[in-house]
Amino acid sequence: MASPQPIAVFDSGLGGLTVVKALQKNLPNESIIYFGDTARVPYGNKSQNLIQEYGKEITEFLIEKGAKTVIVACNTASALALPFLKKTYNIPMIGVIDPGAEMAYTVTKSKKIGIIGTLATVQSKAYETALQHLDNTIITIAIACPLFVPLAEEGWLAGDVPFLIAETYLSELVVQDIDTLILGCTHYPLLIPVLEKVVGNGIRIVDSAETTAKYTADLLKELNLLTDNETEGKMENYVTDLPVRFKRVARRFLGREINHVSPVHLS
Amino acid sequence: MASPQPIAVFDSGLGGLTVVKALQKNLPNESIIYFGDTARVPYGNKSQNLIQEYGKEITEFLIEKGAKTVIVACNTASALALPFLKKTYNIPMIGVIDPGAEMAYTVTKSKKIGIIGTLATVQSKAYETALQHLDNTIITIAIACPLFVPLAEEGWLAGDVPFLIAETYLSELVVQDIDTLILGCTHYPLLIPVLEKVVGNGIRIVDSAETTAKYTADLLKELNLLTDNETEGKMENYVTDLPVRFKRVARRFLGREINHVSPVHLS
Repeated sequence: MASPQPIAVFDSGLGGLTVVKALQKNLPNESIIYFGDTARVPYGNKSQNLIQEYGKEITEFLIEKGAKTVIVACNTASALALPFLKKTYNIPMIGVIDPGAEMAYTVTKSKKIGIIGTLATVQSKAYETALQHLDNTIITIAIACPLFVPLAEEGWLAGDVPFLIAETYLSELVVQDIDTLILGCTHYPLLIPVLEKVVGNGIRIVDSAETTAKYTADLLKELNLLTDNETEGKMENYVTDLPVRFKRVARRFLGREINHVSPVHLS
Repeated sequence: MASPQPIAVFDSGLGGLTVVKALQKNLPNESIIYFGDTARVPYGNKSQNLIQEYGKEITEFLIEKGAKTVIVACNTASALALPFLKKTYNIPMIGVIDPGAEMAYTVTKSKKIGIIGTLATVQSKAYETALQHLDNTIITIAIACPLFVPLAEEGWLAGDVPFLIAETYLSELVVQDIDTLILGCTHYPLLIPVLEKVVGNGIRIVDSAETTAKYTADLLKELNLLTDNETEGKMENYVTDLPVRFKRVARRFLGREINHVSPVHLS
């Protein structure tokens, strides 16, 4: 039975919009609710308890809005809160870690995989755990890149500054002969041109936004939860702080204008 | 009448520790309570309403802990919440804007003053307003430098990356012949060596942490509220997220180890 209900996507801020962009490409007729926790962004340096609490509040809000599935489009929240959210709610809860790990496992030949993300994501070892689950001979090297999020949000995506920062962070990975690099943060796809320049042709970049959108499409198909709507889906947006900045920066992430952004006060 | 009660300092996160460092140098026998709102950092991109609400919760907590004065050691909160907090509470509420503006006014000869800070501080025009109040012939040029906070927190304080970022942000100021530069964010004093290299000898840097500590010393003396304690004051620390990361990064800001950090849950 087809479902006209929306797919919900949440993130600490704006990064999850790279997942929305990939969803709109893969599933153009699905309606989407986006939730950006802009009053409490970033999650990257916060504790597991706090992030689980935030995830719970947001998921309940999204279920109330009619979500048929919730994508936790934030690597930190996927790493620290998703197992708890999966246990707590009955609808399919999708994270960005497993799709990224599975894609990396599919493309790696050397079985040496690099992972970059926020400090919290790297410390959680969530990608390592997921990859070890798939094949315990895989070797992983993970590096936290805290300056990439502000670079992406500021739109500082080309030139010497992002190149030098990326080179500094990634030099350790490049010398270790990885053949695959997982972008373990939904902000990072904006930096792909710079990252490609730094790592060269020999390393395949796995964009978890793209892989999560494909994973969602497959899962909803399997569960018979895709819409049978034949026109383009709608998009609703909720943010926990004022919508003004969100609208401005969102354009850069989504590649189109955003309307209908409503402020929400949680807890 | 001398007062043994502590001076309270609050900030969205760690930056206010540069004010604490300056206080400990100027008033070593005073006890200090530091409050870092680490669960909700950064304030720089948040709205005025939200920041006033946070400031209210924190000030009430600090008054309950016995604070004789509260220093709002966050430029964003000083710009957006201090006028409201001054109206609401009876103890002296000190911000970082007025002391910085007064010092800049004292040292400028050309009457062209540059201001750097977070987006929220720059948009608030708080320094411009304070400077215009002192002398309406002063010309100001303000630039938001959103990458400086993550650079300071990551300890990325030397080398090409901070230099290039600083050069990019400041080039516009340097060509406009300012002779004074206000560091309108309590994180920025960590970057002074890089900033001095970029702006050269002709521009005087006004560090609002240092000026706020001196302003506090003068005010407490005037109000007879300095301690008569003759031994080194104590320091208590409260944070709204887990203390682990705070302790680690705090060392860089304070120049010494930090003990006694307690987590607090507000609202």
